[in-house]
Amino acid sequence: MTTNPSPQIWLYDTTLRDGTQCEGLSVSIEDKLRIAKRLDQLGIPFIEGGWPGANPKDVQFFWQLQEDPLKQAEIVAFCSTRRPNTVAASEPMLQAILTAGSHWVTIFGKSWDLHVTEGLKTTLEENLAMIRDTIEYFRSHGRRVIYDAEHWFDGYKHNRDYALQTLEAAIASGAEWLVLCDTNGGTLPHEVSESVTTVKGHLSFVLCQKSMTNDPGQRTIPQIGIHTHNDCDLAVANALAAVMAGATMVQGTINGYGERCGNANLCSLIPNLQLKMGYSCITEHQLTQLTEASRFVSEVVNLAPDEHAPFVGRSAFAHKGGVHVSAVQRNPLTYEHIQPETVGNRRRIVISEQAGLSNVLAKARTFGIELDKQTPEAKQILQRLKQLESQGYQFEAAEASFALLMYEALGARQEFFEVKGFQVHCDLVEGKETSSALATVKVAVNGQNILEAAEGNGPVAALDTALRKALVNFYPQLASFELTDYKVRILDGHAGTAAKTRALVESGNGHQRWTTIGVSANILAASYQAVVEGLEYGLLLHSQAEAAVKA
Amino acid sequence: MTTNPSPQIWLYDTTLRDGTQCEGLSVSIEDKLRIAKRLDQLGIPFIEGGWPGANPKDVQFFWQLQEDPLKQAEIVAFCSTRRPNTVAASEPMLQAILTAGSHWVTIFGKSWDLHVTEGLKTTLEENLAMIRDTIEYFRSHGRRVIYDAEHWFDGYKHNRDYALQTLEAAIASGAEWLVLCDTNGGTLPHEVSESVTTVKGHLSFVLCQKSMTNDPGQRTIPQIGIHTHNDCDLAVANALAAVMAGATMVQGTINGYGERCGNANLCSLIPNLQLKMGYSCITEHQLTQLTEASRFVSEVVNLAPDEHAPFVGRSAFAHKGGVHVSAVQRNPLTYEHIQPETVGNRRRIVISEQAGLSNVLAKARTFGIELDKQTPEAKQILQRLKQLESQGYQFEAAEASFALLMYEALGARQEFFEVKGFQVHCDLVEGKETSSALATVKVAVNGQNILEAAEGNGPVAALDTALRKALVNFYPQLASFELTDYKVRILDGHAGTAAKTRALVESGNGHQRWTTIGVSANILAASYQAVVEGLEYGLLLHSQAEAAVKA
Repeated sequence: MTTNPSPQIWLYDTTLRDGTQCEGLSVSIEDKLRIAKRLDQLGIPFIEGGWPGANPKDVQFFWQLQEDPLKQAEIVAFCSTRRPNTVAASEPMLQAILTAGSHWVTIFGKSWDLHVTEGLKTTLEENLAMIRDTIEYFRSHGRRVIYDAEHWFDGYKHNRDYALQTLEAAIASGAEWLVLCDTNGGTLPHEVSESVTTVKGHLSFVLCQKSMTNDPGQRTIPQIGIHTHNDCDLAVANALAAVMAGATMVQGTINGYGERCGNANLCSLIPNLQLKMGYSCITEHQLTQLTEASRFVSEVVNLAPDEHAPFVGRSAFAHKGGVHVSAVQRNPLTYEHIQPETVGNRRRIVISEQAGLSNVLAKARTFGIELDKQTPEAKQILQRLKQLESQGYQFEAAEASFALLMYEALGARQEFFEVKGFQVHCDLVEGKETSSALATVKVAVNGQNILEAAEGNGPVAALDTALRKALVNFYPQLASFELTDYKVRILDGHAGTAAKTRALVESGNGHQRWTTIGVSANILAASYQAVVEGLEYGLLLHSQAEAAVKA
Repeated sequence: MTTNPSPQIWLYDTTLRDGTQCEGLSVSIEDKLRIAKRLDQLGIPFIEGGWPGANPKDVQFFWQLQEDPLKQAEIVAFCSTRRPNTVAASEPMLQAILTAGSHWVTIFGKSWDLHVTEGLKTTLEENLAMIRDTIEYFRSHGRRVIYDAEHWFDGYKHNRDYALQTLEAAIASGAEWLVLCDTNGGTLPHEVSESVTTVKGHLSFVLCQKSMTNDPGQRTIPQIGIHTHNDCDLAVANALAAVMAGATMVQGTINGYGERCGNANLCSLIPNLQLKMGYSCITEHQLTQLTEASRFVSEVVNLAPDEHAPFVGRSAFAHKGGVHVSAVQRNPLTYEHIQPETVGNRRRIVISEQAGLSNVLAKARTFGIELDKQTPEAKQILQRLKQLESQGYQFEAAEASFALLMYEALGARQEFFEVKGFQVHCDLVEGKETSSALATVKVAVNGQNILEAAEGNGPVAALDTALRKALVNFYPQLASFELTDYKVRILDGHAGTAAKTRALVESGNGHQRWTTIGVSANILAASYQAVVEGLEYGLLLHSQAEAAVKA
């Protein structure tokens, strides 16, 4: 269905406008500026910055960009058509857009007759005038205009003739792009395809007529864009269907952020268009920055990244099954639909219950340990792994604990300290806001027993502090370690408070981060185990680094 | 493209097999049984239970289902073809499948020549024999067979003739379904469409030839199924494209759980097929259970539900305040692509104080409390709610705690007991498998102070026991209460062990279940608070029931 072998698709990012409608997402002006710069680096040609005038944040955002403009991208201001029965030139809302100073303006207008008569409570003719006047107003001030046909696909279904008239009004007044919007997200790919094809055909016919009558109303040859939402889990498919039917602009957001179920995800669209369908969007080098850009944006908006996101997710190229893993290593292309590096992601071998020996060997290799499949050590590691996993351990996320397990099986686990036991005492008096916890630990280092106690606002914090106090004189490097994340999961909730608990602790030393695990019916014992292994692994990393320097 | 106005699409759920390949997801046998029962209620006709023999958990799961079978659904065992150069009858792997006792067996085999020669290291002819022998073996033991053509779309691209031969082998040996699998998830909808159309055409041709020659090899007329993965963000679109090209079985998982980027999400596929495309999958009533089923499965596998999930997500029908909201309320169909109730979801009005208040009133009504919008109590409840939610409380899942909060605001919270404080002492000696915890609680009932202590294998169990011991003489009904579920979530993991903890406790009295919440930087204080409110709410229910009997 593609008519051109490798045409350009123009990307239009609306993370900073439609994306911020996402429930749970909020951004400062500073955040918006950081994201805009990153999108510019990524090679997105159109970046919709917001609706200046609708809120003060967006006004300031555009002003700041006037001071410090983007390198390549066009920043676009977004705005509706003028209100019914007004004059464009005297609408403060439209003047605020001029003040924002962008070359490009996106005007959205109504395509669906019902929204005109019931929503705007005006006539169908007045809506056409609103579209024309608003676009002409911006054109007369030298702005270039993208026209967003809101609720396009619903309007097209209910009153096709009128919907097409709204597009004609936008062309006649000088819009350079007509963007068909599936605002409610309810359209299916074959419907998108049919509608885009019809629009293309209709516009060719209209343009042909105009050129024959030499109508001065026609100023530019508009192209088609597509704006989709994910309410049917089809936002990406719908955008691709539109492109195959002739659309040349694709609107979307980073990570698919957006109202309700989100917008079309640019992190999926770009690789599909470029790697699978042969379109040109951004450079190959920019494409290798995609995974990082996705994570950067999720960091800035402070939403946890989707680990299972296509192309850019942490699990997107993770391999779990046993037989499977050895095959992947022989010939990755038979098990991966693209090379992870092309989008800046990487292959990961996951350790789990379903692991075979080859997973274990592959994982060992990432820790610099070469194991032979035939050795008793390799088999012993696998057996121990399965035994621990049946008890509720899960090493997928706790790679440091897995490394310690491997060193132990190889007889190479260095003993930095030995834990003899711990006690925790917790005291809560009703009515007092804070509760205190007191922890006592007993550890042995080089045959010397150390007893140490500490307080904390929770029992695990107290345990952690006591342990560090006991060890820091022997291992001063502990001072630079910190506990960066702590997660608890109840494994069999149905056993009530007697259920087994799994604790995951992430630690860091300023350069590296590692995760350890503990499992016990006692929530404190599970947490303590993970904390202890976190310190041990940190000491191991330090001693490996020292050995490397000496060597 | 649909040839039939409202044909049946057969749903095939693989949450319990392919879904468990999802990184971060692990389930016990008990979890699998609960999910299977729920899928059965939802009306899924085929439920793939696992690969009995590949791990002991799946063997036990099938055995338990023999004791206590599903009501409607067919449970399906999954397994590969026999290994190269063996005899099916002497393969222990295949015998384990027979022992599992399911009527239906899904056999997966290689479609891609490269996987045969490089992966299996055997000949293309031997692979065809493996498919034939394995299916014939199960057919001769009275099993019905679904054939999963692994890596179908890649195989089809690389060596179409051979790929088609593998399907012919499966048909000739008696498979009733041929399922085309996009195992690597790299295929686009138009490619799926083209391939399914070709397969349909080819099979018609082959079947026509066989019937003319009266070949006994052909036993059944196979139908086409589709199995897709979400690596291109197109799993749902690909499955729909296959259905439009003639596939009649759709494989997927609840919430799209699965390896890497997941499988096709049944929670999106079912409403698309049924509400948008006019196919028949489950009953209308079952469809209204979809949202609940989605959340149930996410609870059981203990993964946070995706709030933005199409159809079933909490944000899927969320509307922001303002003009939009009043328009939605006037004519919802112009702003929502389906009625949320058809899939058991609901419209949500976000943010506005007014909307918050009406939510509170609606919620109060579910507890039989009629509140007036204008009263200071209603406003006070809303204010308290917002304050607590900013501290990390979340009452959506803890309705019993919310009810107590309402009674308190109304001055109607009955005081059954007063907690004066608690102490916990925990002692772990390294090398001893069990750790013990000792809890002491001080409560006042009718002005009388009671001090009680108890031991447990964890601190929360000890606290729970001590509290019951202290109260049971005053409230003998406590003897019938039990703690049925306990969950802990760390709210701000990045604060390390000092992070706030949210504990949810589910309690029951044999007839009813209720959930309470606690939040604190101290994991024990949060848990204790939820346990205390759980007992209090149980006593409240008991006293309400007694009052009702007397009245």
